Amino acid sequence: MQATESTVLEPLARVASEAGATSLGEQLLAIGAWMADDMAATEAQLRHVEGLHHDPESAKAAAQHLIDSGGKRMRPMIVLLAARLGGETDPRAVRDLAVVSELIHAATLLHDDVIDEGDERRGQPAARRIYSNSASVLGGDHLLIEALLLVERSGDAQLRHSLLTTISEIITAEALQLEWRGRFVPDRELYLRVIRGKTAVLFRWCFQAGAKLAGLTPEQVADLGAAGMALGEAFQLVDDILDLDGDPAATGKALFTDLREGKLTWPLIITAEQQPEFTAQVQACIGGDALDSQAAVVQTLRGCGALEATKALAEQRVEEALALLRKLPESKAQQALVVLARRVVERKG
Amino acid sequence: MQATESTVLEPLARVASEAGATSLGEQLLAIGAWMADDMAATEAQLRHVEGLHHDPESAKAAAQHLIDSGGKRMRPMIVLLAARLGGETDPRAVRDLAVVSELIHAATLLHDDVIDEGDERRGQPAARRIYSNSASVLGGDHLLIEALLLVERSGDAQLRHSLLTTISEIITAEALQLEWRGRFVPDRELYLRVIRGKTAVLFRWCFQAGAKLAGLTPEQVADLGAAGMALGEAFQLVDDILDLDGDPAATGKALFTDLREGKLTWPLIITAEQQPEFTAQVQACIGGDALDSQAAVVQTLRGCGALEATKALAEQRVEEALALLRKLPESKAQQALVVLARRVVERKG
Repeated sequence: MQATESTVLEPLARVASEAGATSLGEQLLAIGAWMADDMAATEAQLRHVEGLHHDPESAKAAAQHLIDSGGKRMRPMIVLLAARLGGETDPRAVRDLAVVSELIHAATLLHDDVIDEGDERRGQPAARRIYSNSASVLGGDHLLIEALLLVERSGDAQLRHSLLTTISEIITAEALQLEWRGRFVPDRELYLRVIRGKTAVLFRWCFQAGAKLAGLTPEQVADLGAAGMALGEAFQLVDDILDLDGDPAATGKALFTDLREGKLTWPLIITAEQQPEFTAQVQACIGGDALDSQAAVVQTLRGCGALEATKALAEQRVEEALALLRKLPESKAQQALVVLARRVVERKG
Repeated sequence: MQATESTVLEPLARVASEAGATSLGEQLLAIGAWMADDMAATEAQLRHVEGLHHDPESAKAAAQHLIDSGGKRMRPMIVLLAARLGGETDPRAVRDLAVVSELIHAATLLHDDVIDEGDERRGQPAARRIYSNSASVLGGDHLLIEALLLVERSGDAQLRHSLLTTISEIITAEALQLEWRGRFVPDRELYLRVIRGKTAVLFRWCFQAGAKLAGLTPEQVADLGAAGMALGEAFQLVDDILDLDGDPAATGKALFTDLREGKLTWPLIITAEQQPEFTAQVQACIGGDALDSQAAVVQTLRGCGALEATKALAEQRVEEALALLRKLPESKAQQALVVLARRVVERKG
């Protein structure tokens, strides 16, 4: 699909004035068209990660299964768009880093499914169910190393180093979440530490990686990193809402998955702050599939307006990200990132 | 413990002439004394890996448990000794890389125990039994990233890159082993691919890392790498013998663990080549604890002289390593590496 300049620019120009879902959909299509070459190249590279096609081993098959199952490819899209914010870039380096971001994401999902004993992912059986836990552990290890080899090829020592510290933060957050799993402790600070590490730091890296390759100033790179953190938090807050009030056909995972796994989510925390007896209601849902308990939890949190409050907080974070994005000179890439940021709160899956 | 020059040199000087166990023990003690400062510093650094002490999370506790459980510290010892083969080195860089080698080893053990559903390690319950599989997966991830951050600090781009490719080879070999687990296929080529990837490539990296920091020539670095490969193979062949004929008090793991897990080992392969009915005997041992079947396997392979043949092959590999080591100018470090190489075939645990 080839987009002319006007089909791209026209919907993008309406971003500031319109925020309706249809308009957002149109705008996203236009962005997709504008980036079609880059996204197709990234996708092709992702599906032919070094080594994955050499051997029929189940570990590699597990990794391939996860990558082939799709997903939103939000992270590569951010890298690719941020890289268009400045002057000329080396397209190979940009695409390598876009692939890196998705490989790291995929590696953490493979290990996550083992840790959480997850059964579904992206509307399909989790890799660990088709292959095995062992295959998913090794598949995740494999993707992680491939990502690190690829970031090395990009030749940017700072991005290589920040990727390692980013992964370290992701692991620490996963460990923190594991530590508290199954005990519902409505602690905002704990929650924020977990979602920042689990999700936001990789968004930060994606913005910084693209911006740095585009030759933006250190201040601009830092601003974009901060925008990535805010967006990542918003992304996770919306995930929390979708777990309680989403459409499984759109999200690709069953309702109440986080609730059953005893994961701390924002709507639960703010409801518990208002209703002390809520903690026991949540605790009754953990580890099982008690439909009565789940219904009671949803009723209580709706009564407290917790979903709306969570949405409002997500929107606030997105506004922070938008304010930072708007500090940049206007450009198509900047407008596209604004659309993408809005997509984070509007998304249904 | 402070060793004088003479207490070190005297037993080392006897290396070439004596190979008895007592002499080897004395020589190892002398080497330990000579390297006491380096080994103590490495050990201290290993036990205080960045981040492991900040939080009480179970993933970090799992990683710490494995490191604290000891082990032979063969890999750091190789790095430290190889680094003494040349001129002056930066002691911090050398110790960092010694720590790196043990962290990578520990990370693979943590993931291995999850993959193999191992219950014991180094005579203690495996970390996954005390904490959880999840904690072991994350603990392994954590150590891997710490190792990569540390190798980056050493500033040697080539060693950083070769560490990544080494880890990639380890993962590929683990995946290959996983793929064939539970089916006894007496295939020498498959076996060699697995043990080279699982064990030998990390030995190679240890020799190369030390030698490179010591400023040896590229040819010497390559020779030492080849010595590491040969030693690593010998190490694994001896492991195979100990699984069938070792003392659990010395090895820290139950007899017949590999046999029950359906892992391919050399004594089984060469017996099956002589006795076609042996394959069914081995297959009967996999997955269970059938004492009769285990006894039958041991009887058949003893009848074929398989343990002796495996020992002979291990000795041949060690000789190859020794020949390469002897190409170096004579020095205490070279003599110590010769002792260490002999230790690989003489070891009981």
